[in-house]
Amino acid sequence: MNQTNTIVKMVLDRWNASLASCDNLLKQLSNEALQKEIAPGRNRGIYLLGHLVAVHDDMLILLGIGEKDYPELQEPFLKQPDKAVADLPSAATLRSYWEKQSAKLHGIFEAMQPGDWFEKHTVVSAEDFATEPHRNKLNIILTRTNHLQYHIGQLILLK
Amino acid sequence: MNQTNTIVKMVLDRWNASLASCDNLLKQLSNEALQKEIAPGRNRGIYLLGHLVAVHDDMLILLGIGEKDYPELQEPFLKQPDKAVADLPSAATLRSYWEKQSAKLHGIFEAMQPGDWFEKHTVVSAEDFATEPHRNKLNIILTRTNHLQYHIGQLILLK
Repeated sequence: MNQTNTIVKMVLDRWNASLASCDNLLKQLSNEALQKEIAPGRNRGIYLLGHLVAVHDDMLILLGIGEKDYPELQEPFLKQPDKAVADLPSAATLRSYWEKQSAKLHGIFEAMQPGDWFEKHTVVSAEDFATEPHRNKLNIILTRTNHLQYHIGQLILLK
Repeated sequence: MNQTNTIVKMVLDRWNASLASCDNLLKQLSNEALQKEIAPGRNRGIYLLGHLVAVHDDMLILLGIGEKDYPELQEPFLKQPDKAVADLPSAATLRSYWEKQSAKLHGIFEAMQPGDWFEKHTVVSAEDFATEPHRNKLNIILTRTNHLQYHIGQLILLK
């Protein structure tokens, strides 16, 4: 296994392990628990779940995979803070999005070849990418794994 | 820049950005704020700070750099839960450890060559490493960055 294959495996392993960790945690939290704030006056679990689905949905665009599956989540869970929008999807709906999305991303990532990950993502220009080759698709996985871990550290407070 | 150099930069960039993010957050939290629990009945800020220093101290061993600088932190901040040990170092002491440690690790990492990161870490045997080349030094940085993000997501609740 060469270094490119090794590093792609390392980064995807962390992403998959983080998704599994969040998945396992969500299974231990009831829909009622998700309605609670992670700490007094802070975001509710349901907001964090919707936020994660919205951020991961945006990866479809960044990685050049296709259109967003849940564009209606961008406004309430990315642009607005928690409690600004009264009519949010239910916890059950967000859970089903989360599961479908995780499976979809898993299938797409498994089908990619190691070298594909070093292509530029869609937000960087070809000109900038020539001198900043780290702005590639694999970096999207790295940053989104960090983002996911940050919020797992909060969701676990609902247990 | 070849793919090995690119990926090492990507992973170290995430580590450095996460350390800077935690550092910036710690500067906004008073020593009194660090005495508070991140949520009712949960870990206090001071415990999380000591825990991070202890985990990062252990990286010196895992990466084969040298001995731990703060071995006395392993028991109260890794083996024991918060509030099990009455006599913890002060927030000011832990802050000074954090700063010294971050600077030390930064200097060591900067001096390493990209290829060094693909050497085995100290906990995996040469035999296992032959078939599991992802158990390398760079993977330690990946996992510790995730761990740091998890706890930043909690420390920010003290703001």
